[in-house]
Amino acid sequence: MKLFSIKPVYAHCDLPCGVYDPAQARIEAQSIKAIMDKFGGLDDHSKTRAIIIKEERAELVKHHLLVLWADYFKPEHLEKYPDLHDKFWHAIKQASECKHHVEPAEGQKLLDMIDEIAEIFWATKK
Amino acid sequence: MKLFSIKPVYAHCDLPCGVYDPAQARIEAQSIKAIMDKFGGLDDHSKTRAIIIKEERAELVKHHLLVLWADYFKPEHLEKYPDLHDKFWHAIKQASECKHHVEPAEGQKLLDMIDEIAEIFWATKK
Amino acid sequence: MKLFSIKPVYAHCDLPCGVYDPAQARIEAQSIKAIMDKFGGLDDHSKTRAIIIKEERAELVKHHLLVLWADYFKPEHLEKYPDLHDKFWHAIKQASECKHHVEPAEGQKLLDMIDEIAEIFWATKK
Amino acid sequence: MKLFSIKPVYAHCDLPCGVYDPAQARIEAQSIKAIMDKFGGLDDHSKTRAIIIKEERAELVKHHLLVLWADYFKPEHLEKYPDLHDKFWHAIKQASECKHHVEPAEGQKLLDMIDEIAEIFWATKK
Amino acid sequence: MKLFSIKPVYAHCDLPCGVYDPAQARIEAQSIKAIMDKFGGLDDHSKTRAIIIKEERAELVKHHLLVLWADYFKPEHLEKYPDLHDKFWHAIKQASECKHHVEPAEGQKLLDMIDEIAEIFWATKK
Amino acid sequence: MKLFSIKPVYAHCDLPCGVYDPAQARIEAQSIKAIMDKFGGLDDHSKTRAIIIKEERAELVKHHLLVLWADYFKPEHLEKYPDLHDKFWHAIKQASECKHHVEPAEGQKLLDMIDEIAEIFWATKK
Repeated sequence: MKLFSIKPVYAHCDLPCGVYDPAQARIEAQSIKAIMDKFGGLDDHSKTRAIIIKEERAELVKHHLLVLWADYFKPEHLEKYPDLHDKFWHAIKQASECKHHVEPAEGQKLLDMIDEIAEIFWATKK
Repeated sequence: MKLFSIKPVYAHCDLPCGVYDPAQARIEAQSIKAIMDKFGGLDDHSKTRAIIIKEERAELVKHHLLVLWADYFKPEHLEKYPDLHDKFWHAIKQASECKHHVEPAEGQKLLDMIDEIAEIFWATKK
Repeated sequence: MKLFSIKPVYAHCDLPCGVYDPAQARIEAQSIKAIMDKFGGLDDHSKTRAIIIKEERAELVKHHLLVLWADYFKPEHLEKYPDLHDKFWHAIKQASECKHHVEPAEGQKLLDMIDEIAEIFWATKK
Repeated sequence: MKLFSIKPVYAHCDLPCGVYDPAQARIEAQSIKAIMDKFGGLDDHSKTRAIIIKEERAELVKHHLLVLWADYFKPEHLEKYPDLHDKFWHAIKQASECKHHVEPAEGQKLLDMIDEIAEIFWATKK
Repeated sequence: MKLFSIKPVYAHCDLPCGVYDPAQARIEAQSIKAIMDKFGGLDDHSKTRAIIIKEERAELVKHHLLVLWADYFKPEHLEKYPDLHDKFWHAIKQASECKHHVEPAEGQKLLDMIDEIAEIFWATKK
Repeated sequence: MKLFSIKPVYAHCDLPCGVYDPAQARIEAQSIKAIMDKFGGLDDHSKTRAIIIKEERAELVKHHLLVLWADYFKPEHLEKYPDLHDKFWHAIKQASECKHHVEPAEGQKLLDMIDEIAEIFWATKK
């Protein structure tokens, strides 16, 4: 693990409309996965809280993915990555799925889907 | 510029209360800085929009810093970093300052303050 | 005036996940169009307010379209309407476009795109 | 199924302050009713989620009714419909009631109250 | 300075549904009035910010008044204060009015209307 | 019952940046305490609702305290009250604590911490 300063999370946006970073969706998805990991060991009060928080985080994942998909990606990206729509559609659906489930595998699946999108994103920034 | 996949933005949280990442505050602060960089060249309609968005982003920076300060950091961290309170107080005040200003230097100052906090954060995660 | 106008505003949802209605996106889009229609005649204070409200409404359109796209539509719909992803992508991008513009034609374009989606939606409910 | 179903979902606003449509409150109320219809058959995790969502939807109903009552309706409408205040007050209270209950009859009562308001609304638009 | 000033800020709620306090609406209305008082002396950037903040505060006033009106007040209060509906309707409409105006007199009118409601509220708590 | 109760609910702000009042945090904290007082006697449905509402109220307390701490208080106040940072940090942490607990003593502790801050606040306004 290194200093934050030599591992930029970010990239200064070179487009007219702003700064984008798949990390926003990913951090919320990590919360979801962490909640699922702990869910079994929680008492009833905490289980209710966990469901509330999981619900909110999943909503944030959906929002951050929407922003990436519709605000950042442009027709030229779509030409190069013709399954881009499908990747986002399934990732956003998986975020909804995480509202229904507490199995960590569902959270991991969401993280993997976001990572696939992040790879495409960073490839387009090169 | 490298692949996202070998530079983790994130760290799986080993604490009972969740996932924290200074990147959340930083990404919003980058938006603020980017808006300031472009502000001078915008038409009136876009200037109004830029102020609205800058206002929201600054509020998000404040929120994300609050979460780090009050939820993540514990008394043992404070002992090791006695100026932690001051660092957060000034960074949050700087986020408010960015609502009032359009000079990129104000946005940069906010980014620098968040980076200082991020360094402490990542040092405590080692 | 077209066929949408003889469709009921509501439909009791026969699916496990809830109630969907393209009217939610459409009503917000109408607001955007109405704001654009009036924009030229407004004083400075009202122009600023109009931009704030237009910004919020466009965000709501994007949110409501996301819900329809990712929560309501299923793979079987996509098979029947292979350009469904594109229709949503362009409609959501058009909602962003409406944040940048005050020409009523941009609002009308958004309304037309939502109507096309609504027609597909109601066809799948028959 | 009643007369509301032959009313258009939308109406271009001819007033200076915007677009109003009782469908906004009604769609959220339908969600509440749909949640109540399914509540008995849900598992514990889904029951908690249902209560969270019902809570949010009821809040949205209250908000949309407030907008209609205070933004759309004018003194001349009140003269013609002297029980307008009471109708809104009871409908908003019924939305709160739906937060406390899971009996579908409570959701239906809310829908009926919104339909009564919608009838008055559309009568004033003729 | 009037009798409201010697009332406690808080009162432990003796009703099943919670804690209510007209101070919530009043504090937001004071912000609106303070913004109006300063508006004339602001530069363009700050004027835009002031309009954004005034818009939000007015929305909060409307929300807090809705809560008091529909959640706290009961039929027995209405019997004793038959113009209660009208008082709330006009106060909420005045909050909307404050979105359109920057004259401090409009903010003062809103404050006075909230104070009248607060007097009734505290009378019912005796 | 202490001196706070004879302080006015409101104070016209004499600073350039707005109106501040610890009552905003306190009213939300009272809700939390009231929910805790009733929690034991609630049925399952209401318990879930109580946890949702407690979660929201605690979040609002944190937000209102952040505003006071970072927007209202200035370096000169800090000189006079060197433990101001600590008082806020612990109060905000206590608001988080209230999300985890249903014992009224936790809510009372939060109220006491807010009252201490309120005393300092009002002392600086003299």
